[in-house]
Amino acid sequence: MEFLVHIEIVWPPDEPEERRAEIFERELAQGQRLAAEGRLRRLWRVPGRWANWSLYDVADATELHACLTSLPLHPWMDITVHPLAQHPNDPLTTREDPS
Amino acid sequence: MEFLVHIEIVWPPDEPEERRAEIFERELAQGQRLAAEGRLRRLWRVPGRWANWSLYDVADATELHACLTSLPLHPWMDITVHPLAQHPNDPLTTREDPS
Amino acid sequence: MEFLVHIEIVWPPDEPEERRAEIFERELAQGQRLAAEGRLRRLWRVPGRWANWSLYDVADATELHACLTSLPLHPWMDITVHPLAQHPNDPLTTREDPS
Amino acid sequence: MEFLVHIEIVWPPDEPEERRAEIFERELAQGQRLAAEGRLRRLWRVPGRWANWSLYDVADATELHACLTSLPLHPWMDITVHPLAQHPNDPLTTREDPS
Amino acid sequence: MEFLVHIEIVWPPDEPEERRAEIFERELAQGQRLAAEGRLRRLWRVPGRWANWSLYDVADATELHACLTSLPLHPWMDITVHPLAQHPNDPLTTREDPS
Amino acid sequence: MEFLVHIEIVWPPDEPEERRAEIFERELAQGQRLAAEGRLRRLWRVPGRWANWSLYDVADATELHACLTSLPLHPWMDITVHPLAQHPNDPLTTREDPS
Amino acid sequence: MEFLVHIEIVWPPDEPEERRAEIFERELAQGQRLAAEGRLRRLWRVPGRWANWSLYDVADATELHACLTSLPLHPWMDITVHPLAQHPNDPLTTREDPS
Amino acid sequence: MEFLVHIEIVWPPDEPEERRAEIFERELAQGQRLAAEGRLRRLWRVPGRWANWSLYDVADATELHACLTSLPLHPWMDITVHPLAQHPNDPLTTREDPS
Amino acid sequence: MEFLVHIEIVWPPDEPEERRAEIFERELAQGQRLAAEGRLRRLWRVPGRWANWSLYDVADATELHACLTSLPLHPWMDITVHPLAQHPNDPLTTREDPS
Amino acid sequence: MEFLVHIEIVWPPDEPEERRAEIFERELAQGQRLAAEGRLRRLWRVPGRWANWSLYDVADATELHACLTSLPLHPWMDITVHPLAQHPNDPLTTREDPS
Repeated sequence: MEFLVHIEIVWPPDEPEERRAEIFERELAQGQRLAAEGRLRRLWRVPGRWANWSLYDVADATELHACLTSLPLHPWMDITVHPLAQHPNDPLTTREDPS
Repeated sequence: MEFLVHIEIVWPPDEPEERRAEIFERELAQGQRLAAEGRLRRLWRVPGRWANWSLYDVADATELHACLTSLPLHPWMDITVHPLAQHPNDPLTTREDPS
Repeated sequence: MEFLVHIEIVWPPDEPEERRAEIFERELAQGQRLAAEGRLRRLWRVPGRWANWSLYDVADATELHACLTSLPLHPWMDITVHPLAQHPNDPLTTREDPS
Repeated sequence: MEFLVHIEIVWPPDEPEERRAEIFERELAQGQRLAAEGRLRRLWRVPGRWANWSLYDVADATELHACLTSLPLHPWMDITVHPLAQHPNDPLTTREDPS
Repeated sequence: MEFLVHIEIVWPPDEPEERRAEIFERELAQGQRLAAEGRLRRLWRVPGRWANWSLYDVADATELHACLTSLPLHPWMDITVHPLAQHPNDPLTTREDPS
Repeated sequence: MEFLVHIEIVWPPDEPEERRAEIFERELAQGQRLAAEGRLRRLWRVPGRWANWSLYDVADATELHACLTSLPLHPWMDITVHPLAQHPNDPLTTREDPS
Repeated sequence: MEFLVHIEIVWPPDEPEERRAEIFERELAQGQRLAAEGRLRRLWRVPGRWANWSLYDVADATELHACLTSLPLHPWMDITVHPLAQHPNDPLTTREDPS
Repeated sequence: MEFLVHIEIVWPPDEPEERRAEIFERELAQGQRLAAEGRLRRLWRVPGRWANWSLYDVADATELHACLTSLPLHPWMDITVHPLAQHPNDPLTTREDPS
Repeated sequence: MEFLVHIEIVWPPDEPEERRAEIFERELAQGQRLAAEGRLRRLWRVPGRWANWSLYDVADATELHACLTSLPLHPWMDITVHPLAQHPNDPLTTREDPS
Repeated sequence: MEFLVHIEIVWPPDEPEERRAEIFERELAQGQRLAAEGRLRRLWRVPGRWANWSLYDVADATELHACLTSLPLHPWMDITVHPLAQHPNDPLTTREDPS
């Protein structure tokens, strides 16, 4: 099941740069792990903000919760989850369907 | 440039079924045309509502406007557009990038 | 997967009483069918409104969408879906779990 | 009387892990006590957030307030309470009602 | 249990005056019946609007729902219910309590 | 003139318990003074929150402001004031009115 | 007591011009009556909208309600009332106060 | 003084096409008149909606109101006005300022 | 041109009383200066809050900005500005206009 | 492609003046650089707030994100981006178009 996820990062402006760099690096690695597992499918930036939209493909909301809380920046994230139902006209599925 | 688009359809509950069927069919055809042109990339239903999330890949907001207003149901649509910036960790691009 | 669903019914105040009675009866029957199938688990009224909260247990958002659009009152419903993740301390599961 | 309760936990991201663990353990114990007393009936996580939905069955809003303020994490909780009225078609009661 | 109830009346501006007068009279009578039964305790107007705040004292949300849907204007009402818990310093109860 | 007042208390979760107890006691005393003067007429808790609804009977908004700012917890309060107009069917006045 | 009043007029775009002109003239006359009585003190337009801000000086919310419902356009108005408390530094009163 | 203006057009989906074309043409002409007078400076579409952002340069809010209500589509417009103050670093003025 | 200004003061509850007194005194003096210059015309308190409504008469938004940022409390203020257009029926101008 | 950008600066009121001056100077320089490059086209102040509206002309949302995050005050900014589509009646383009 796919979920559209909006993440806003609320990071204190005066945090030392090293701490941001360190946690950012771990965040990047964990994001790549989720992508390699096929759970995180797409990731976009919200222009102008430290925020993003992402597309997850997981079994259910419980697995999604496990993915999102595994992110090192999770304690600083304000997350909104949009459950997605399949649309019969989704180009991805109609393209893949030879009939 | 990619855009995430949220469309809510405000359709009068008492409209005759034939009219709905006729406009729905034209909507379907135009959606397939936009998909075939590579502009409409993904399409999901918002569960429980006559609403959807879609992902467009177009030159800019002017082309996006032309796509959206070409939809036969456009006069009944309440549309919100979210511009997307590329994220360096987007699984799609990192997967495609062999370097 | 469970979903918490909030439904607000927007019904024209001047609709003839017979029409309301007829559609209400069909709504009742379809609700009982969903309950018998184990998909609709709980149903509460929002006091003072023609609105309700319900608890669904279905495979995913696609099946939930099918359930909700099967309701005869669906064209008059304004529906908001809240996906639910399992909580390790949910009394239902801890009660059922002898370990 | 049943109440649907939405709880959002606003916990400082930089709080020491031990403090979180200690208060979390006490929270768990108190939640189990409320469940054993039959007041807390269900508990779900909001995916992606430190937040939950819960279902309480208590005498009235005064007893509900006592339950919620007994939770060790209460000073960090942002709580919204939805009073619930019985619905004649609630699967729980219709199932239990042999008539 | 007490409930604070906010009611907004959405009445079409062009409805014939006689119809408004007739339904208004029945509304008045039903309000007096609820007051005589001790369920409706206070009633105030929101200045400038066809809206009011009221205070109900009933067994629970189910009885409140029955009261509110018994009002002839109910199909035109937009109602929000605020459940109230007893406050130890409520002047009404401290005044009545000789201890 | 009566006013319905909603007060939300924003108190830092980590404030020492003694300070809370001390200010709370002074708050209680001042609330009783306002009640004894007939200005504060009713007081209810919002279930689950450190918040309340209260009913004031004062000359005007200026006197109400004086009452509310006299509360020791005022600097931590987020207050919303709803002015109330008399309703001809208010049970309190119709009950008291023998005509 | 002064009140700041925001009025939004919701008038059907297709209403015949004569009807609008007729009701507008009566509205104007009633506004002038309220001004002559010293109840309506100021009146401004919200630029771009059929909406206005006004300043009333009346005994209380009950008198304000009577003023506002006396306006011929009242059934088409969406009104929000802001109660005002005197400010010790209000230029009007400090100017008038020779001390 | 400059104003940023957001206009949303609320046009009934079932209005005959000729009526839309006729009013649209008059709208176009009046917009060009305001542009020729130097009052309307810029005009952009909100992608996906029948809505726009515009930039006006007028004496004050009273003149702006006259401009906006002169538009033939005004009865169908939902308008929000943002007053603008000059910014010392506005590229337009710094570019034009040789000092 | 007149502007209606809503100011909310966000002042830390635990700030020393002397600091508040000192800045408050300077705020008072600057407010009187703006009033003496005829820019600040009216000032009211929002009951229950450290907030106010004020009426300014200035050349444009740029001069208004200069007035508001000259207030010593400005860094703690959350300000919303409502531009006002003249209303032909404003009692102030019709009263002053002998024609 | 043009974007309308709303920026709200959330700066701690008690920050030392020198720090504000230093970062402000760097902000000014970077803004001028973006203007010189033709990316930042207009800049206005929101009266009464430390906030602004700006108009950017860039390739896409990715370039816009790079511009906005290059601003030294970015960590203190709350930014909302409005994508703009060309309007056939934009005075700028119709003026420049001799046909």
